[in-house]
Amino acid sequence: MKRYRAVFHLTEIERANLALNNVNNLLAELGEDQVDIELVTNSEGIKALLKAGPYRDKVGDLAAKGVRFVLCSKSLRALKMKEEEFITIAEVVPSGTGELVKRQTEGWAYVRP
Amino acid sequence: MKRYRAVFHLTEIERANLALNNVNNLLAELGEDQVDIELVTNSEGIKALLKAGPYRDKVGDLAAKGVRFVLCSKSLRALKMKEEEFITIAEVVPSGTGELVKRQTEGWAYVRP
Amino acid sequence: MKRYRAVFHLTEIERANLALNNVNNLLAELGEDQVDIELVTNSEGIKALLKAGPYRDKVGDLAAKGVRFVLCSKSLRALKMKEEEFITIAEVVPSGTGELVKRQTEGWAYVRP
Repeated sequence: MKRYRAVFHLTEIERANLALNNVNNLLAELGEDQVDIELVTNSEGIKALLKAGPYRDKVGDLAAKGVRFVLCSKSLRALKMKEEEFITIAEVVPSGTGELVKRQTEGWAYVRP
Repeated sequence: MKRYRAVFHLTEIERANLALNNVNNLLAELGEDQVDIELVTNSEGIKALLKAGPYRDKVGDLAAKGVRFVLCSKSLRALKMKEEEFITIAEVVPSGTGELVKRQTEGWAYVRP
Repeated sequence: MKRYRAVFHLTEIERANLALNNVNNLLAELGEDQVDIELVTNSEGIKALLKAGPYRDKVGDLAAKGVRFVLCSKSLRALKMKEEEFITIAEVVPSGTGELVKRQTEGWAYVRP
């Protein structure tokens, strides 16, 4: 287990760029070998993980450094979008909120950019 | 003690519908017997608990499933509103922030929709 | 160690006044001898700690009561601002996000006003 574990909550698409920068800064400060990071998206925040979206490269770079990207299936359905529209590395979970609660119960820190 | 415990922070009234949906999804995913949920409202967020507001039924349904709804007395005073204007199941606490800190100190997860 | 420890996250300057009120309420409710409080600012939130800003007195009053105010060096650079523009009590940390994660790992509660 790494020394630090942090789950980021992205629920407002306007805050996607900031959230990705926050993740990048955390990784740079603590080091890949010291921190596990997961970005959980729900509501409009899921659009940050769209294949055709502007964040694709930034997300890919962070994923290559071990960051996990999570997509809320409830939000997917509510926004009438399809899993195929999202980057393949995005992992679909039953609910983004459930993921956030489970991670914190396991001891992860929570950050809402 | 249930396996999961989560406190939701609602401080922007525009995010009330999303917050209630998040609570509902969490309950559906984890099950009423597995999770304790509390929604803490402060600042403008307290308006989600108004008797005359649009969220009354949704709040009532969740309360029937065991969700606790909490109202910040400091915000009540700051917005010059009266306790009688709010749904009777809402519990008034000294401060919403104090409630959030106490719950987390007891091990509850925090979610800010 | 005090009974309660809470880290506040201020990342939207429009929410500075609310955040400072939240801190003040928490202090009043729990008592200075019972709670350690730190306000971490990043992104546009750092502007709440400007010498020439409208929050200077409020921040000074809270600092006098033991609240610690933290400034993200990454945000400082991104906004092309200088450390001299900020109140002297503000402590600069490598990244605001890192500070939030470290504090929570030490057991502090997180509040995002």
